[in-house]
Amino acid sequence: MDLDVHLGTDERDWEPTADGTLRMAIVGLGWWSRERVLPALADLENCRATVGVSGSAAKRERVVADWASVEHGLSYDEFAAGEAVDAYDAVYVCTPNALHLPHVETAAGFGKAVLCEKPMEATVERAERLVSACEDADVPLMVGYRMQTDRACRAVRRIVREGVVGDPVQVHGHMSQPIAEMFDDPSHWRLEPDLAGPGASVTDLGVYPINTTRFVLDADPVAVSASTWSGGGEWFDRVPDERASFQLSFPDGVTALCSVSQNAYHTAEFRVVGTEGEVRMRPGFFGDRENELLVATTEGETTVTYEPADQMREIFCFFADRVLGGKTIPADGEHGLVDMRAVEAVYAAAEDATRHQL
Amino acid sequence: MDLDVHLGTDERDWEPTADGTLRMAIVGLGWWSRERVLPALADLENCRATVGVSGSAAKRERVVADWASVEHGLSYDEFAAGEAVDAYDAVYVCTPNALHLPHVETAAGFGKAVLCEKPMEATVERAERLVSACEDADVPLMVGYRMQTDRACRAVRRIVREGVVGDPVQVHGHMSQPIAEMFDDPSHWRLEPDLAGPGASVTDLGVYPINTTRFVLDADPVAVSASTWSGGGEWFDRVPDERASFQLSFPDGVTALCSVSQNAYHTAEFRVVGTEGEVRMRPGFFGDRENELLVATTEGETTVTYEPADQMREIFCFFADRVLGGKTIPADGEHGLVDMRAVEAVYAAAEDATRHQL
Repeated sequence: MDLDVHLGTDERDWEPTADGTLRMAIVGLGWWSRERVLPALADLENCRATVGVSGSAAKRERVVADWASVEHGLSYDEFAAGEAVDAYDAVYVCTPNALHLPHVETAAGFGKAVLCEKPMEATVERAERLVSACEDADVPLMVGYRMQTDRACRAVRRIVREGVVGDPVQVHGHMSQPIAEMFDDPSHWRLEPDLAGPGASVTDLGVYPINTTRFVLDADPVAVSASTWSGGGEWFDRVPDERASFQLSFPDGVTALCSVSQNAYHTAEFRVVGTEGEVRMRPGFFGDRENELLVATTEGETTVTYEPADQMREIFCFFADRVLGGKTIPADGEHGLVDMRAVEAVYAAAEDATRHQL
Repeated sequence: MDLDVHLGTDERDWEPTADGTLRMAIVGLGWWSRERVLPALADLENCRATVGVSGSAAKRERVVADWASVEHGLSYDEFAAGEAVDAYDAVYVCTPNALHLPHVETAAGFGKAVLCEKPMEATVERAERLVSACEDADVPLMVGYRMQTDRACRAVRRIVREGVVGDPVQVHGHMSQPIAEMFDDPSHWRLEPDLAGPGASVTDLGVYPINTTRFVLDADPVAVSASTWSGGGEWFDRVPDERASFQLSFPDGVTALCSVSQNAYHTAEFRVVGTEGEVRMRPGFFGDRENELLVATTEGETTVTYEPADQMREIFCFFADRVLGGKTIPADGEHGLVDMRAVEAVYAAAEDATRHQL
């Protein structure tokens, strides 16, 4: 079957138009920033890393040594004190969740635009303070939902919006990874409630199917029911959700059934069944893998393959263009708060075994 | 990757061993019996249709005329009165759900084995009476879960049981069909609570992912949460579940997220994610389509294709062998009651927005 939809396998459905280059301070230099973000920025014209901020002197020195554009390595105290404040225009916050707020407050205080990793913070209350800090300082805030700039995911949204599968009826989303094989240390911050928030799987992974469903449906959830489970042991004794399964209700009787786990096979899938067809993205949420879209309708089936995408390159390019051009930011603070409230409701609904209204 | 598992693409993992031929009375001669059951039986050695029972003289006359083995066409009254009772050994009940009980009571009273379509009855209370009738008369009862004799589904079970995907973690199941395109009449019995039971989608379709999950995991659900939705109108004004989404909790933190709809694209899928891999069956629940199994582990991925299977041939062959050989029946009345209770709990949980223990 022919799909009369822009699929974006070889080109974006948007292009940066603003002049200039956005200079970024990268706050938090863990493996994600070093291995995913800095290489992506080195490849961009409208955005580059000029400052690295870390509590580790070794990490910040290495980043300055390794990346020509990074001129300053700052400690968190130096960053908070405004050192090298003229060397960057915007801040990317990629620390453990519960440390986002102070860094965003610092950035906003200096009038810098903010790209904040997901989830925005560890609790709704802290996320609201984070959003207020940016609003009060009148600085742009974007949450790092990289599925919103992922080509395959954007194609899923177009397929749904253009009615290829009819009216959306039911969504299934799954994301899991074996965290103990990815990090050596059971005291890793994603499993530490003081740093990660109320849990490990919904906060870190649940945001993918939640936000992707919202993005694709262009709708926000109105209710949630959920269950969580942890087997305990060295890795999962501090979090309730080694595994979590939850159900989001959207307007017009549309539901999303989502499962996530930090201790299962490394896989993901996102699927929308409509009245006239279905679309499935596999694995979808992992940017470093080939991504396969299946579209099936009464007219037939077709499969579209996407090469592994540099998701960080896409999101930084988008963010820089939005900030440089003074354009509106779809995934802004208010948008992110909807996810924060949904995540908190998932834990509450799992705990008290009732459906929670949002 | 090589799968060291019996896949059953070209042969069963069981074979009938009992001598003889089971003679069946087919009770209810709707399209399913006429188009799916009678052709399947004509193709079997250990089972054949000898009696057709229907309220419609035209239907029973047509069946006697069309199928050489069918010697008697009976009205429901004639069947209840024991006419031609020596011409059959067992009864297949394929009437609207709420009419199963009296026919099973009749069959049990005559000492006949019973193969009863799913769901067993319209309510748990009536299903319990149905099971008691067979127990009291000491006649074999099997519920018509044809996924349990489907080759692809049996392969999924073996893959899970033999640990190919590690420990099961999360299951997703979906089944939907556009009922208004399948039947001309909005007063069709599946949409009529007096005949179908508490709803249309969970009773008729929900049983597939529920029972298949139980079959594959070899476990029974312990809790359920759910939501249902109906858009009303001519087709769906009498049922709460034009669409339903529900979550079953199984022991050891395993969950199944299921969605069903009588008014969506004709599709289905069943997927198990484990600690070490995943297996997906698509479409799984529809016997008349090619069925694709995907197995993915850290060792690689493989796809196995099953030709469209005659599900009714398989289940009747299995049933006949069990009855003729006096063998135990896995999908017996007690087994079926677990599904009946789960279905009733889905509607209750959707109604009161709480998780129900089973």
